[in-house]
Amino acid sequence: MLAKTPKPPYYAVIFTSTRTKEEKDYKEMNEAIEEAVKNADGFLGVEDCRDGIGISVSYWKDLESIRKWKNNPLHTLAKEKGKNIWFSSYKTRIAKVEMDYDFI
Amino acid sequence: MLAKTPKPPYYAVIFTSTRTKEEKDYKEMNEAIEEAVKNADGFLGVEDCRDGIGISVSYWKDLESIRKWKNNPLHTLAKEKGKNIWFSSYKTRIAKVEMDYDFI
Repeated sequence: MLAKTPKPPYYAVIFTSTRTKEEKDYKEMNEAIEEAVKNADGFLGVEDCRDGIGISVSYWKDLESIRKWKNNPLHTLAKEKGKNIWFSSYKTRIAKVEMDYDFI
Repeated sequence: MLAKTPKPPYYAVIFTSTRTKEEKDYKEMNEAIEEAVKNADGFLGVEDCRDGIGISVSYWKDLESIRKWKNNPLHTLAKEKGKNIWFSSYKTRIAKVEMDYDFI
């Protein structure tokens, strides 16, 4: 399902990654994070997929919401484990959505 | 492979979509577009995957480059066919990347 986002401007966090072969706790953490982010202030939606590389784009009301989520304890743990265990590389880009158009 | 992009600011075009079941010419058009975009002015790289939904994030030097690519004849044809044949829904978001950080 595509994310339903409000009229711009709003923010996108584009997280792209490649995985190691380590599966331990990965799915469980993903599910816990998915659940937690839904309740984060200013969270507007997320779109993700993995097929060779992984792409996860989450949408946020403003930079302040992104900053708060960045400091969420579960998210901090997930990032720490991600870097050490699950991901072989990743990149995070923070971008201001200026325009959007759709066909839904 | 993750895209190697320069220091921000630059632009991201986030294209998310769901597919119809129609496969005719889809792969061929995708390959032709992938080849053509590499030579587009201001194109910086692309990351994409499909797994349930499709996410394609292309990176661009500035809005002018995006505008020029938008009017590329092959791209125009691909969008027209995409809307009529291959996609059941899609959304395009144009966003200015303000910050990025990585672990590569």
